[in-house]
Amino acid sequence: MNRRQHTARDPDFAHRCRASCAAQPAMSRLFGGEMTVIEPGYCEIRINSQPDFLQQMGNFHGGIVGALADSAAGYAALSLLAPGLEVVTVEYKISFLAPAFGEYLVGRGEVLRAGRTLQFCSADIFAVQDGVEKAVAQMTTTMMAVPDPKTKT
Amino acid sequence: MNRRQHTARDPDFAHRCRASCAAQPAMSRLFGGEMTVIEPGYCEIRINSQPDFLQQMGNFHGGIVGALADSAAGYAALSLLAPGLEVVTVEYKISFLAPAFGEYLVGRGEVLRAGRTLQFCSADIFAVQDGVEKAVAQMTTTMMAVPDPKTKT
Amino acid sequence: MNRRQHTARDPDFAHRCRASCAAQPAMSRLFGGEMTVIEPGYCEIRINSQPDFLQQMGNFHGGIVGALADSAAGYAALSLLAPGLEVVTVEYKISFLAPAFGEYLVGRGEVLRAGRTLQFCSADIFAVQDGVEKAVAQMTTTMMAVPDPKTKT
Amino acid sequence: MNRRQHTARDPDFAHRCRASCAAQPAMSRLFGGEMTVIEPGYCEIRINSQPDFLQQMGNFHGGIVGALADSAAGYAALSLLAPGLEVVTVEYKISFLAPAFGEYLVGRGEVLRAGRTLQFCSADIFAVQDGVEKAVAQMTTTMMAVPDPKTKT
Repeated sequence: MNRRQHTARDPDFAHRCRASCAAQPAMSRLFGGEMTVIEPGYCEIRINSQPDFLQQMGNFHGGIVGALADSAAGYAALSLLAPGLEVVTVEYKISFLAPAFGEYLVGRGEVLRAGRTLQFCSADIFAVQDGVEKAVAQMTTTMMAVPDPKTKT
Repeated sequence: MNRRQHTARDPDFAHRCRASCAAQPAMSRLFGGEMTVIEPGYCEIRINSQPDFLQQMGNFHGGIVGALADSAAGYAALSLLAPGLEVVTVEYKISFLAPAFGEYLVGRGEVLRAGRTLQFCSADIFAVQDGVEKAVAQMTTTMMAVPDPKTKT
Repeated sequence: MNRRQHTARDPDFAHRCRASCAAQPAMSRLFGGEMTVIEPGYCEIRINSQPDFLQQMGNFHGGIVGALADSAAGYAALSLLAPGLEVVTVEYKISFLAPAFGEYLVGRGEVLRAGRTLQFCSADIFAVQDGVEKAVAQMTTTMMAVPDPKTKT
Repeated sequence: MNRRQHTARDPDFAHRCRASCAAQPAMSRLFGGEMTVIEPGYCEIRINSQPDFLQQMGNFHGGIVGALADSAAGYAALSLLAPGLEVVTVEYKISFLAPAFGEYLVGRGEVLRAGRTLQFCSADIFAVQDGVEKAVAQMTTTMMAVPDPKTKT
């Protein structure tokens, strides 16, 4: 399906998504993920290679690829939610298309259908080697909007 | 479905699986995963909590949970393969049942059907808090046997 | 995971599930599905073979197997809901373990986790040939409780 | 991801796919499916509404939607295979985006990555009502090439 047009309910969505990603110890510190693009219903996150991210053959471990897909899709979903709501992952399915060799990974998450409670999203993961992008994984996911426990009500 | 009975083709399967897991930088160093049980068609891996593994609320990040499920199922599949074969993940689907709070995670992977080329496996992930185990995620996966590039032929 | 113990909120759950299944043109007439067991969080449906259900090799078409899995899991979920609620399928993943040869199919659906809004369920599909049951497919699914549009409020 | 360019190995692929679809009792007779487009790596199948295909509210039963997605993706995969090979569905995941109301369903299957053994495909299902197409389901699947048992070797 083609890229959807979405409208953000929260004018401050970009700041809110970036702050949330930066405050996640796992994504920001463990994986070193950096949110490079955030638009209504769309998110791009980049993870640079580190020796501990690799399999024995030198390609990225599937766990890193899966975490990146989950985060890119999750922030795409969060970008459409009203303030005071948070996103939890209900389930995702990821298919691995090729081994992920390269200097960094790019995850592109997108909301395909935004419901009141549930968001159906996808994410494509690419490995970039010598400037050439290669699709390495594709993921679809169900995300759910829940009240943000950090928000006072 | 109930636990299957499987027979290993490689009498040295346990050593081979443990060595492979220990040699994976991502699973052994980044996530600190420890293979606690390996039997024909069954594998248990444990990951202790670390501050960088957590979400902002203090529960394990989904990326760690997914990586654990992938590895537990993958080594369950590898345990049944002949020497000289390696396992790659074709796809997996993971459903998150509850937030993963606790001192450590336990992943239990199992082969449900072992074909010549493809292995259908599942994994259940539990978070253990104060000695109480709680199911936090369930995963099903298709694994594929491929020639091990590290093996001379 | 082992069979869960669930409690029905609606004492009339069995009648309600059987009536709903019988009123579904697709399941009851097109596929000839018969609900053989309904318990809190568990449902068994049987579909007898008909020439139009088969592939060219004589095994059941995957579409019949998938529909059976969806229905068995869906009624397992419905059995736990309060009156006035209906179930819709958010998503399911089905893995095909073996070709489905036999006189009939049995689908066994089960609720693995019953949340307020979402139910995580699984279904195992068996083909029965000469009295021998063989597992042919395994499915996991996310179901959602919604107000029943047929109920006056 | 965007529509891929594929090359068929079998110059007679279109005839072979159409003949296979027409010879399937379940798809051609039970569901009345008609293959409207077949190109290398792409397939479109249409199913007209019939009273027995519907839920109680008048929308298509999920089993029909799932069978259509499976078939559209399967023939997209078959279109790329050499003569003498057949396609079996390893697994699929389908997400339901909206109830499927309309005069007919259109399923569009596409090969996203064609490997030697495994094909990763997707399918989008649309319901058409008064000439307006609405996306009702999205599916991803792993297909496997196997020797066609009907072919003499």
